[in-house]
Amino acid sequence: MAADPRFATWANALEDHLDQALPPAGAAPQRLHAAMRHAVLGGGKRMRALLVYASGTLLQADETALHAPAIAVELIHAYSLVHDDLPAMDDDDLRRGKPTVHIAFDEATAILAGDALQTLAFERLATADATATLRVDWLATLAQASGAAGMCGGQALDIDATGSQQSLDDLQRMHALKTGALIRAAVRMGALAGGADAATLTRLDGFADALGLAFQVRDDILDIEASSAQLGKTAGKDVAQAKSTYPALLGMDGAKAKLAELDALMRQALAPYDGRADALRALGDLAIHRMH
Amino acid sequence: MAADPRFATWANALEDHLDQALPPAGAAPQRLHAAMRHAVLGGGKRMRALLVYASGTLLQADETALHAPAIAVELIHAYSLVHDDLPAMDDDDLRRGKPTVHIAFDEATAILAGDALQTLAFERLATADATATLRVDWLATLAQASGAAGMCGGQALDIDATGSQQSLDDLQRMHALKTGALIRAAVRMGALAGGADAATLTRLDGFADALGLAFQVRDDILDIEASSAQLGKTAGKDVAQAKSTYPALLGMDGAKAKLAELDALMRQALAPYDGRADALRALGDLAIHRMH
Repeated sequence: MAADPRFATWANALEDHLDQALPPAGAAPQRLHAAMRHAVLGGGKRMRALLVYASGTLLQADETALHAPAIAVELIHAYSLVHDDLPAMDDDDLRRGKPTVHIAFDEATAILAGDALQTLAFERLATADATATLRVDWLATLAQASGAAGMCGGQALDIDATGSQQSLDDLQRMHALKTGALIRAAVRMGALAGGADAATLTRLDGFADALGLAFQVRDDILDIEASSAQLGKTAGKDVAQAKSTYPALLGMDGAKAKLAELDALMRQALAPYDGRADALRALGDLAIHRMH
Repeated sequence: MAADPRFATWANALEDHLDQALPPAGAAPQRLHAAMRHAVLGGGKRMRALLVYASGTLLQADETALHAPAIAVELIHAYSLVHDDLPAMDDDDLRRGKPTVHIAFDEATAILAGDALQTLAFERLATADATATLRVDWLATLAQASGAAGMCGGQALDIDATGSQQSLDDLQRMHALKTGALIRAAVRMGALAGGADAATLTRLDGFADALGLAFQVRDDILDIEASSAQLGKTAGKDVAQAKSTYPALLGMDGAKAKLAELDALMRQALAPYDGRADALRALGDLAIHRMH
């Protein structure tokens, strides 16, 4: 399993577009701008953006039409990390191998930078070079995935559950919102750019849901098996915080069996497609096998 | 000067629409939902929403088309208050006569509730019953007004300036972003719903900018002259935090003269309009004369 060669091309294009979308470091309010840039640029796997490009490619969307949703989903992801890392939330000092925003700057700036990154995500979609209909479809998709019925709601469930024992169902529901919803939105936004019909969207939802869950199971495994240096963030936090995880509930072997099952689900969802789905397949492989 | 009788009608309709737009209190994650509802419902002057209705009325927009932007701008305003009140920001315990969200709930919930309220604002616009073109115009207007180049940027400038002496120009620039941008967006969104042309938008921007500034000058005056009970928030904070204010820079008489000047500017901007601008005129009067 090698990474698709297009990933580097897409990631490089994305980095340029993110750089241009973010407010300039030299302009006032400089501290806010610098914090926003710190949070977004020069790090991260960019998995959500790659999912936009990969699903857009499956639907033969124009690649230039994919930059706006790719930027937007990464900005939402980055804002959520900035806020999740705050002392009142997960209280983390290290992210993507760098100090978190409230450490590199301060708490007030981290709160505001996260807020402004969220706004910027929606602004980029609203002003994208696409039909108004596609823009509102993207906007509704991204907003529904990241609000109280999606990512934010999942984070709230996660906080509520910290320190208490969760059932496998609770854990799965929490992750479906906390990380799954945004991953599904990324796949959908790419597909919408390619004019996907309802049946295709449903099939791709199935792929995205399996990938989102696989990503999380792998995350839980890596939290135990990898070092902080490998991860670019603090390892071993789940055990320290007594969080329910897949290895805790299923055992390490059970968690790895779960990964294999999700791998099969992803392959099945993409089975109707030819080589045009190869980029999505490669992202599924990465979610299953990633080492950081 | 009496309040326009339509204000109560609009405010009541808005309250119902906000109640329906917010996630139900009984559904999980309950603590997040309860915090969002606490932050939004049952309080506030609703000035931004009233501006949407009033400027829509001037342009003879269909009133039902105005609910979505009215809801959205109030959700953005509410989210900004929740985050501004946090310990790392203004550290305030009292808002609209009630405990602030991080006091009534906790800090993590307040951060998440603010985040989810912002998302909900954009979601409501994206899924509003209006043409896709009008929806993206609203979305772009609101996002530009509330992000790093608007409200968030203004809050960052305010934090940067705390404890240091600001010039009148700096103060004006900060307020133009921190409160002015959202007030201007409210007026614009109403006008856009009524199909306003560029010249009308420019004239209404002039009105909104004067109103936004008047609102802030009056706020500074009330912070000195009114009690916490009257304000429903902590009075006397500006002096305690050594913030630059209009009374501090201009003297109390100078600040009141400034208000009179802004009053004249607002009247001038609305002079070309007949009785259809009465609701906007009444909101201008309220900004100038309000006692809380």
